[in-house]
Amino acid sequence: MAEHPSRRDVLRAGVAAGAGIILGSPAHAADGEPAAEMTLFDAVKRRRSVRRFLPDPVPEEDLKQILKAACMAPTSGNQQPWRFLVVDDPALIRALEDACVRRGMEQTRQQGTTETAHLAAAEERLRTRFSAYLSAPVYVVVLTNNGSRYPSYNEKDGSLAAGYLMLAARALGYGTVFCTDSIAEEVTREVLSIPDNMTRICITPIGMPDKWPGRPSKKPWRYFVKRNSL
Amino acid sequence: MAEHPSRRDVLRAGVAAGAGIILGSPAHAADGEPAAEMTLFDAVKRRRSVRRFLPDPVPEEDLKQILKAACMAPTSGNQQPWRFLVVDDPALIRALEDACVRRGMEQTRQQGTTETAHLAAAEERLRTRFSAYLSAPVYVVVLTNNGSRYPSYNEKDGSLAAGYLMLAARALGYGTVFCTDSIAEEVTREVLSIPDNMTRICITPIGMPDKWPGRPSKKPWRYFVKRNSL
Repeated sequence: MAEHPSRRDVLRAGVAAGAGIILGSPAHAADGEPAAEMTLFDAVKRRRSVRRFLPDPVPEEDLKQILKAACMAPTSGNQQPWRFLVVDDPALIRALEDACVRRGMEQTRQQGTTETAHLAAAEERLRTRFSAYLSAPVYVVVLTNNGSRYPSYNEKDGSLAAGYLMLAARALGYGTVFCTDSIAEEVTREVLSIPDNMTRICITPIGMPDKWPGRPSKKPWRYFVKRNSL
Repeated sequence: MAEHPSRRDVLRAGVAAGAGIILGSPAHAADGEPAAEMTLFDAVKRRRSVRRFLPDPVPEEDLKQILKAACMAPTSGNQQPWRFLVVDDPALIRALEDACVRRGMEQTRQQGTTETAHLAAAEERLRTRFSAYLSAPVYVVVLTNNGSRYPSYNEKDGSLAAGYLMLAARALGYGTVFCTDSIAEEVTREVLSIPDNMTRICITPIGMPDKWPGRPSKKPWRYFVKRNSL
């Protein structure tokens, strides 16, 4: 938060104002962690998929709290198959962006586009798209180890951990987005040298949103719920 | 909460005392929902896998809040492939228990146990185990629809929704457990007539724990985290 030291504090104050003021000791003062006052239901309701970020760095203590929360997700037989590759080296983030654009251009050519002007326009669109996706100061690649005790449950365990990570980030004021195809697995595998014994669940940015998106359109919850019989 | 009207209130008061007192308007008073004050980080830290429950019913408003939270999980391309089968018919819950015991006995016989006394002891162990697992007043089978738009992402989406559901339940004072093998898919499929076009992610009880289990042993979070390179 070197450049904008007060922005997150302002955001957190807004959280407190919207959700009731918390008095008394911070929840985790005992182990030296900052209070994280957002309620579970507010974090759930206010999480959004964010695809453009401000450059403000994520303080180490926040990143630690987010990663610790991810490690508290339920996991089959307590196998804990996950690995979290934190990427905050700007050169690596630029390399991811460049590789995403290159891959997009290969696909564009494979689709038969050959005219120079069309190719230039495609490249500009790709650069705009991926420079936004890759504008956060930190990325976390959520991986699972294929050599875990119950590998057939790794996809569930990894997804649960990613869900916890994103809610924890939201509670601290950060945006995330569960990227699968939007930042291709092969790109992360190549640029970050992810070995074959690891399966990627997703990659997510963590950062202050350029702005918080509105609530996406969802079917009413009752549509998904049946009682005692389908 | 007909039989023990004050137990959950006492529990919630304990939550407030442990995590700071919230003053001001309840978070969701505007849409008539109860305040759910537990912070995201407290829900994450205090969730446990619970395998024995008190008979106290789960009020409809709590169940609704839990299911609505599940429906707010991230989902690939907003496909929302999930279905939640709520099971609170006591006859169905007993039928699940009986089917789990029968299946356990079949496996016991397949393993070569034939002596009457051994079979009786095995049946007693199975009955003890499954009468505890099936002691909650409500179960939710988390399913995904194989005909969704991006079915290859259903396992991720369904797991995310299940994770949200369990955190929401914890924030309201309830225990859950993400059951896969412990309540076999084939048992739920048969007893609850789950059709072939649905994939089961898990089944979880929702109820007041007989007691809250202690914190399970976990590897230190740093073990799972790498920076910029694996």
